Amino acid sequence: MSENRDGANGTVDSHGQSTRISNGTLRLGMIGLGLAGAGMLPAVFEDSRFKLTAVADPNPLLRERFAKDHDCRVFDSAEALMEGDCVDAVYIATPHQLHCEHVVLAATHGVHAVVEKPMALTLEDCDRMRDAVDRAGTVLIVGHTHSFDPAVLAIRDIIRSGSVGRLAIISMINYTDFLYRPRRPEELDTSKGGGILFNQIPHQVDTIRLLAGSDVTSVRAASHVLDPARPTEGCCTAFLEFSDGTAATLTYSGYDHFDSDEFHEWVGENGQPKKPSHGSTRQKLGVFSSSREEAEARTTRLGYGGRPMNPATDEKWFQPHFGTLIVTCEHADIRQTKDGIRVYRNDGSEEVIIPCASTRPGRSKVLDELYDAVVHGIAPVHNGVFGRGTLEACLAILESSRSHAEVRLGNGLGEQA
Amino acid sequence: MSENRDGANGTVDSHGQSTRISNGTLRLGMIGLGLAGAGMLPAVFEDSRFKLTAVADPNPLLRERFAKDHDCRVFDSAEALMEGDCVDAVYIATPHQLHCEHVVLAATHGVHAVVEKPMALTLEDCDRMRDAVDRAGTVLIVGHTHSFDPAVLAIRDIIRSGSVGRLAIISMINYTDFLYRPRRPEELDTSKGGGILFNQIPHQVDTIRLLAGSDVTSVRAASHVLDPARPTEGCCTAFLEFSDGTAATLTYSGYDHFDSDEFHEWVGENGQPKKPSHGSTRQKLGVFSSSREEAEARTTRLGYGGRPMNPATDEKWFQPHFGTLIVTCEHADIRQTKDGIRVYRNDGSEEVIIPCASTRPGRSKVLDELYDAVVHGIAPVHNGVFGRGTLEACLAILESSRSHAEVRLGNGLGEQA
Repeated sequence: MSENRDGANGTVDSHGQSTRISNGTLRLGMIGLGLAGAGMLPAVFEDSRFKLTAVADPNPLLRERFAKDHDCRVFDSAEALMEGDCVDAVYIATPHQLHCEHVVLAATHGVHAVVEKPMALTLEDCDRMRDAVDRAGTVLIVGHTHSFDPAVLAIRDIIRSGSVGRLAIISMINYTDFLYRPRRPEELDTSKGGGILFNQIPHQVDTIRLLAGSDVTSVRAASHVLDPARPTEGCCTAFLEFSDGTAATLTYSGYDHFDSDEFHEWVGENGQPKKPSHGSTRQKLGVFSSSREEAEARTTRLGYGGRPMNPATDEKWFQPHFGTLIVTCEHADIRQTKDGIRVYRNDGSEEVIIPCASTRPGRSKVLDELYDAVVHGIAPVHNGVFGRGTLEACLAILESSRSHAEVRLGNGLGEQA
Repeated sequence: MSENRDGANGTVDSHGQSTRISNGTLRLGMIGLGLAGAGMLPAVFEDSRFKLTAVADPNPLLRERFAKDHDCRVFDSAEALMEGDCVDAVYIATPHQLHCEHVVLAATHGVHAVVEKPMALTLEDCDRMRDAVDRAGTVLIVGHTHSFDPAVLAIRDIIRSGSVGRLAIISMINYTDFLYRPRRPEELDTSKGGGILFNQIPHQVDTIRLLAGSDVTSVRAASHVLDPARPTEGCCTAFLEFSDGTAATLTYSGYDHFDSDEFHEWVGENGQPKKPSHGSTRQKLGVFSSSREEAEARTTRLGYGGRPMNPATDEKWFQPHFGTLIVTCEHADIRQTKDGIRVYRNDGSEEVIIPCASTRPGRSKVLDELYDAVVHGIAPVHNGVFGRGTLEACLAILESSRSHAEVRLGNGLGEQA
């Protein structure tokens, strides 16, 4: 159960893989053309190390839209795609409850996988996924989350360099319109992986865990269901402590009231410039006459082809982010900014500008991690152990909210990369 | 041990007090002309309901400065002031370890008192103070803290009105230069009431408790001593839960790195417009060659006469604040702004501008509460029960930080106004 477990087993013997990888290019399959899959594609298309060779989705409209745009094999199921024997790795962007099945499927075909967060809905499923991957010797990465954002990785590098002394406190807050974006019914049911605990808090927990770099030992949290019409957790505040004494608090609300991008110079989550539009997401949702109509809109509007894939070319985009992130170390605070990070040391502050090499800088880092693991044998940070640890912390947040008491982690359960 | 205990006993029989209060004007004494006392005086001078009739301070320089400026009795000790029989109420701005002694002294002379936070350093002392006040039938108010800020009171009024539904989450963050302002040695010793737990966190805890309006039942926190040269807690993050399920997280750092007034349009704690001056407080501190020199500077520079008492007349001041305050309710988020508050409801947001009726709007509210209690018999919110509750929560934050575990409050200990 060490940091290298997934990584070591996922390291590819370049000789054994030589029939599948030519010229260092990896054949990638996208399973799921909904919001998450469509959001990943721009990063794939602009990365010459990958060739998208297959996609799969059960929805005929999304398949049709995709086939019209791209010369690529199109399947109606993950199973069919796997049987097609045309991919080295897959990006699994299917509904949460299918993550386990699809990762195991990929592993049994010897195919590397990136699976969207949350890794699964139970720790048992996480273990099944890790076992399958270990047996197959394939790579498993859990992402994308905002812990892949270049700014977050830059903060981690500074902490690791030792120049700012020990890490003490991480503070994250984010206020969004999450709960009023169009949803499928299961996305509003916590028991089926709905709500912010499985879909938004993992961004904060992943980021905090990546920066802290040790095991979560204690969780105390409160989450609330404030809108009976969207009967799943929509806001949360939590305290996390790590084995080395580092502590973090996170606050999130998705009720479309305050928008904390106001603290981020009105730059949105993906780095896009945005205008204040308080309340408009809730208003737009009001046009749907039924949950079925809403679910359809989610697929057709937010899935592949429902909206422009790339930003307008005349707009400058900034770094992706997930709200306010402030890190307190012994000799400096570090804060994420729209262009990168700002380091406030004893004798002054400096902004570190991070160039936007990609239109999707955070998602391109997922591909970096996958490529480095498969081709160069570099153990991924966001492996199955890491993904499981984030799910465990999110489940602990839910448990603490329900029991109104501290949840202690550890005893091998709180293991972390 | 009810809400009204202090208030009820502190309610003044206007007949019995008629020899002391003429024309509705209260004779006020200021005990302590250091930073806190000097900071309160502008509000006293501009409030016609009060007449400053006496001051006391053991420091000859501060007494001399004051006597030159004002026609008012000047004493060298709290005891001498009390014997002078020239006050109806005192504002006790003495070092923390003297709060208990001075409140008891006032009570035994039948004099009403406002005592600066923290109310005392132990719960036992709080009880002693409350007993003395109860016996004497005088008013006791614990302040000033930022929970007196008009914006905080406006948020409380909206919550109480019921128009925004139930309160769910309160989030407060503040990053300042606190630890590098000139200090007396005991102010850097936690066991003597030094550090942020006794001096800064009470602002956040008071504000959160005032808004939540029920008892703190659970505290989980981490605080850190990051600078061995200032060996007391300088940063902290904490989770608080209340008996009705309301939760709050607060984060504070006083290490003069990030300055969160950047999120407040560069308006400072007292409402003053400020310029970014990151690192300058630490730099200025470097000129002192000894802790004695530093302590002297604290008195001479920050005490009475050490700096201009009022803002330059051509500067517009804004509302006082203590960092970022965001409140999540069922039907709205409410956030403190530089001019008041902004309410983000389902159908749009509106800013509620609060007029600055005083140059010290937060401190003038302390005087309102004192006057209303003494003259009109209105039970004060910030009474001895409330002050004790805040100290108890701050001590629980310290205990949780040391034990790395949740601290449960209640059993009558967590009582609150």
